[in-house]
Amino acid sequence: MAGNAIVGQSGGPTSVINQSLVGVIEAAQHAGHIDKLFGARHGVRGVLNDDLIDLSNVGGELLGRIARTPSSALGSTRDKPDEEYCRNLFGKLKARDIRYFFYIGGNDSADTARIVREVAKQERYDLHVFHVPKTIDNDLRVHDHTPGYGSAAKFVACAMIGDDFDNRSLPGIKIDVIMGRHAGFLTAASSLARTSDGAGPHLIFVPERPVSQDDLIAAVEKVYAKHGRCLVAVSEGITAPDGRTYAEHMASNAVGLERDAHGNIQLSGSGALGDYLSGLVTKGIQTPGKKLRVRADTFGYLQRSFAGFVSEVDAAEARMVGRRAVEYSADTGNEQGSVVMLRTGGGGADYGVDLKLEPLENVARHTKHMPDEFLTDDFDVTPAWDAYVRPLVGKLPSVGTFDEMQ
Amino acid sequence: MAGNAIVGQSGGPTSVINQSLVGVIEAAQHAGHIDKLFGARHGVRGVLNDDLIDLSNVGGELLGRIARTPSSALGSTRDKPDEEYCRNLFGKLKARDIRYFFYIGGNDSADTARIVREVAKQERYDLHVFHVPKTIDNDLRVHDHTPGYGSAAKFVACAMIGDDFDNRSLPGIKIDVIMGRHAGFLTAASSLARTSDGAGPHLIFVPERPVSQDDLIAAVEKVYAKHGRCLVAVSEGITAPDGRTYAEHMASNAVGLERDAHGNIQLSGSGALGDYLSGLVTKGIQTPGKKLRVRADTFGYLQRSFAGFVSEVDAAEARMVGRRAVEYSADTGNEQGSVVMLRTGGGGADYGVDLKLEPLENVARHTKHMPDEFLTDDFDVTPAWDAYVRPLVGKLPSVGTFDEMQ
Repeated sequence: MAGNAIVGQSGGPTSVINQSLVGVIEAAQHAGHIDKLFGARHGVRGVLNDDLIDLSNVGGELLGRIARTPSSALGSTRDKPDEEYCRNLFGKLKARDIRYFFYIGGNDSADTARIVREVAKQERYDLHVFHVPKTIDNDLRVHDHTPGYGSAAKFVACAMIGDDFDNRSLPGIKIDVIMGRHAGFLTAASSLARTSDGAGPHLIFVPERPVSQDDLIAAVEKVYAKHGRCLVAVSEGITAPDGRTYAEHMASNAVGLERDAHGNIQLSGSGALGDYLSGLVTKGIQTPGKKLRVRADTFGYLQRSFAGFVSEVDAAEARMVGRRAVEYSADTGNEQGSVVMLRTGGGGADYGVDLKLEPLENVARHTKHMPDEFLTDDFDVTPAWDAYVRPLVGKLPSVGTFDEMQ
Repeated sequence: MAGNAIVGQSGGPTSVINQSLVGVIEAAQHAGHIDKLFGARHGVRGVLNDDLIDLSNVGGELLGRIARTPSSALGSTRDKPDEEYCRNLFGKLKARDIRYFFYIGGNDSADTARIVREVAKQERYDLHVFHVPKTIDNDLRVHDHTPGYGSAAKFVACAMIGDDFDNRSLPGIKIDVIMGRHAGFLTAASSLARTSDGAGPHLIFVPERPVSQDDLIAAVEKVYAKHGRCLVAVSEGITAPDGRTYAEHMASNAVGLERDAHGNIQLSGSGALGDYLSGLVTKGIQTPGKKLRVRADTFGYLQRSFAGFVSEVDAAEARMVGRRAVEYSADTGNEQGSVVMLRTGGGGADYGVDLKLEPLENVARHTKHMPDEFLTDDFDVTPAWDAYVRPLVGKLPSVGTFDEMQ
């Protein structure tokens, strides 16, 4: 089936989401079944507003630079379309004789693609829809991992390596707040910072392992007593045993936190959680005659968009899934799906991925959490986690300390 | 004069302070006038506590790794010694027949070196003291620039490039708080993120250009009206027209801010200032019928210690000033001084530095501020600033946008 195609980007940007976009563009430019390829500015919103650009003839030199540029080159959107929205969307697609819709995003984007496809089917219009995965949260079901995660994980690892040496140099308690509202994958990547015995992070708090404020303070106090310092990695979605996040507790206690359009409490772009945890630890730990040095950093948007800093594996995989989406679409038997990476081999040199097309409904909407095999019960990760995450991040800087002399 | 030597590190770490340390060690290992070289753990505190390690025979492979490791490998201290402290320090140096003292740090460290030297002179003991500069703040007098600054500036530039693309993708007002309590050099480096017309940062607020809250809000509102977004770079030491910092105003208004041992308000390791500015802008700008998207990130300690990410020029210069300190000390005519880089040539390919030994009293204590020629009156920097800063940072990632097609 020959026809026109549209590609769009949605949700929070990543450092390699443009690799996937360029993968789609490159493959579409050489595909026999695609006439024109349009890029939708700011995702589905650009389709609705006729804010499209023709990508059929973008040159290779520019594409190369765009691929290495962080964030979404077409612009993004936080719109989560319902069926009416998708019906309007479908009208726009049909009007331009669009037969292929490639949507780069997370589980919400997969769901948008799914609904648009359903509408098209009801209208007996042949529209093939493909979800190209991206999310630094790494929380898509079925997918072994997602493009964008490895680069963000590398950023977190290098930030934490540096912060661990900073904390050795000027000891105290340091809390680093890392992105991840529901899943702890990105926070857990901080474990890669352990370059020697005694290195931090000493504690890793993820949403999958709820912790009371008292237990959190006690855990920090224990590490501080042992090492004279404590480096803590905390997911922004850190959760109390009652199932509510710390942020929700802060909001109830009138600690100023904003809610977004979806009623979610705003965690990114604010230092409130880090400062709250600092205060908690400062008040909770008694050090008579000595002032405890407690600091918090919130890694913020740098995790998803720091320029010129990617995992090479991640960048290559992001490009590949974009290309593969177009290749899948060449087969008229493939009417819809999410391009999924499945791991072959293990965590070492034999690491590799196989790709497959997975029905959208198996990926859409729901969030994947860290499995139990990756987490201990004392706020740490397992060797299985290390084997899982290390090949996604690639080579880390080699460091050294004078302790090695002894 | 042959004798033993001590080297120490002080103050806030940098990504290349270990390059200077390794420069000192390498040169001392090959210097005829130095018998043993000791490293003081946690700066002058290590001298007082006899917490020293013998660095005379550290191997080259380990030194190579330590040079590339961020933060202070010997540990740091925030102690600001007075004369009595320095008198005790001198006693310890004399007891070990130390004739050369190399201290890596900022203007406080230069002052410590100066006082110790004065005590030694009073005691008629031949002690030669050398200050090896480091500071991400770039605020040492006489020095054209300081080791540590270029790498921190590169971090800020790449963070801001990424954040500018992030902000284009999901438009709104974004405030980035950058280190610098008294000097705006690091915040001003964010100007390197302007990769095309209309790119951010759109406003740069430094301590050298006081701004009222009303003027700040008005400036943001004006940019937002024009671009539909606004990226703002703010020094943590942003100052009001009454000469007090925003942080001081927050402290008076009981917005929770901690003071350190020196009575300084704690700015690093807290998101409070960014959140305060977010609130200010959110309340100050009226957008009827539309919710303004305002976010703040505080770059935090990552600016000084992110692993595996340096300016190559900065790393090489840091190593060189460490080596040169030892070379200067070989000449008995050089009894004390700070190793100063003076720029030769301009900002382009002819950039280079000459080194000289400057009397400690000309560098100690006082802070250098950004000169007027680098700053405009409308919260921006000048072309002279760009020419000054660019060679210190080195090559930045090349990026691209679809706007280039038009």
